[in-house]
Amino acid sequence: MSVPETIIFTRGVPATESFPTEDMAIAAQEAIRAHGDTILQYGSAFGFQPLREWLAKWHDADAENVLCSNGSLQIIEFICTLLLQTNSRTVFVEAPTYDRTITILRKYGAEIVSIPLQSDGPDMAALEAALRKHRPRFFYIIPDFQNPAGATCSGEKRRQLVALAREHGFLLLEDSPYRELRYRGEAQPCLRELAPEKVMQFSSFSKLIGPGPRLGYVIGPQNLLKEIAREAENNYITPGLLAHGSVYEFCRAGKLPAQIEKLKKLYAPRLEATLTALDEYLPESEPTRPDGGFFLSLTLPEGVTTMDVRARAAEVNLQLADGRGFFADGGGERFLRLPFCALTPQQLQVGVARLADVVRRTA
Amino acid sequence: MSVPETIIFTRGVPATESFPTEDMAIAAQEAIRAHGDTILQYGSAFGFQPLREWLAKWHDADAENVLCSNGSLQIIEFICTLLLQTNSRTVFVEAPTYDRTITILRKYGAEIVSIPLQSDGPDMAALEAALRKHRPRFFYIIPDFQNPAGATCSGEKRRQLVALAREHGFLLLEDSPYRELRYRGEAQPCLRELAPEKVMQFSSFSKLIGPGPRLGYVIGPQNLLKEIAREAENNYITPGLLAHGSVYEFCRAGKLPAQIEKLKKLYAPRLEATLTALDEYLPESEPTRPDGGFFLSLTLPEGVTTMDVRARAAEVNLQLADGRGFFADGGGERFLRLPFCALTPQQLQVGVARLADVVRRTA
Repeated sequence: MSVPETIIFTRGVPATESFPTEDMAIAAQEAIRAHGDTILQYGSAFGFQPLREWLAKWHDADAENVLCSNGSLQIIEFICTLLLQTNSRTVFVEAPTYDRTITILRKYGAEIVSIPLQSDGPDMAALEAALRKHRPRFFYIIPDFQNPAGATCSGEKRRQLVALAREHGFLLLEDSPYRELRYRGEAQPCLRELAPEKVMQFSSFSKLIGPGPRLGYVIGPQNLLKEIAREAENNYITPGLLAHGSVYEFCRAGKLPAQIEKLKKLYAPRLEATLTALDEYLPESEPTRPDGGFFLSLTLPEGVTTMDVRARAAEVNLQLADGRGFFADGGGERFLRLPFCALTPQQLQVGVARLADVVRRTA
Repeated sequence: MSVPETIIFTRGVPATESFPTEDMAIAAQEAIRAHGDTILQYGSAFGFQPLREWLAKWHDADAENVLCSNGSLQIIEFICTLLLQTNSRTVFVEAPTYDRTITILRKYGAEIVSIPLQSDGPDMAALEAALRKHRPRFFYIIPDFQNPAGATCSGEKRRQLVALAREHGFLLLEDSPYRELRYRGEAQPCLRELAPEKVMQFSSFSKLIGPGPRLGYVIGPQNLLKEIAREAENNYITPGLLAHGSVYEFCRAGKLPAQIEKLKKLYAPRLEATLTALDEYLPESEPTRPDGGFFLSLTLPEGVTTMDVRARAAEVNLQLADGRGFFADGGGERFLRLPFCALTPQQLQVGVARLADVVRRTA
């Protein structure tokens, strides 16, 4: 008897076949030849200046409002170092939210308040109720194709969010690594466009080119960026300029739009295949139906926990993540995230069928 | 009247003309073509496996005892996260020592005890006296061509250090980025070779290839490396694999030995030019006379502080670092570090002559 292929639904990694390998090989060589004196040397903790300028133009911002780092997660850690070293350590997150951010917030002793996430963004009544009780330093939010839920915040809620941020004096940390990967529908304005003075917007090239170079960036108010740069310099002196220069050359050569189109063509059918398989094999699961990104999610039937399903799934070579890891305040026992980008439509169909079988046997 | 050229004696940066630009351009392209699936993707927090194996071979260690990061400074921060989150936060450093390490130690609330540095390494009587009063978590030490002093630890003191580490149960953090840059004389064994179970040895390619890629590494006991990898993953998920791969290809192609020889040929005359100029213009300064590395240091005449000299030096376009920044427990008012690698012999002569003039006018 042959062992069935392992299907991994645990990590939100991009598809290896999506990487623009040859274009990046050319870009890296070009970058070192053209900018070797700069990108092989120590430099500014704000990152490679031509890349800051390119990103500023792309995002309709000023270069002085852009700081490039080694991935965006570490910038969140710098912000925690800056903003949570006081007695006031309350922060808001969506429930569910990105598990690695929860880990960082806990490391810095944050008092985390979870705002339930709905299919069109945070529950605004719950947010307003929480604001009557707490004064958060910031609200960490993933408005586009949320990780892990797959929800996208509506335009109306975005406007309410920035109004509340202004009224109550908290920052919005807008994490938007998936924003460019919209497979259908129209984009809503990002929070930063609506209130540049109250928003730190993060993004990275991890989902567009590849995570290995480690290139995240933040767009935000200059006074905060200066403090982040000081923290960054104390931590790593200079960010990875070889990566900054290589990605810059890739972008300068005009390769990014075609790369994003390639990703959409690769990933949209994977999302469709997952939804089709769920409709066929697990019609009662009512998954989120995202318009882009890396993830959809569903709630397991009453009485069936992700923990139980995980254990049985492992026996049939199906790897699932524990839903509770995405909830900072408890809950999530029946929450299941399905990352669909790094699996082929065929693998996704097999994985969902296997999942349905395990769920039935667990119920 | 022409403005005199600014001479910068403040930062320990490599000479830009030392970078192996074309070889690195080729290596980066090769790396992405050969290993793109790995180095453009997420990966292990231990770093790019072929690089770990190459480094292990170079340093006569096992690959499982090597962890590669984004520069070595950040690894020191991970170690502080691991070892100083207790009530026992005493650490020993040399006086003077690397100022950026002092900044990190302070960030983690370390109780820093300074052991005076002599021309042949730490003052062992002072170290033994300190060990009668304190139980340090670790002793951070730069045995080869110390930053900022330029001193190198003798073989006898190295053996005493590891004996004391074993007897008193503390770790030695051996920072050795300059070790390969020996311009004369014979190398002493590194501390790790003498006591691999008690030493975490750091190094990087910042002084050998260039700092811009950010590639530092640590060789040490596997149990500690596993904890560092966990901290690293929580901080940046994956280190900069594009840089890891590029440096790996450079090394695999056999380019490193010739590059190190090139650096020695470039830097040794700069050290000589600095010492010759000091003997000529400031014969009373008694500088350290290092056998390699990036720095020498001297003590200004009685009554003359670096602060006073700095202010006057700035007026004649000579930039000097405040000596006190290298002393964690106070002192260093008359200490002056002279980094000589990024200046030409001509600039070094001009700089020392200008320094001598300012010192005379300050005295």
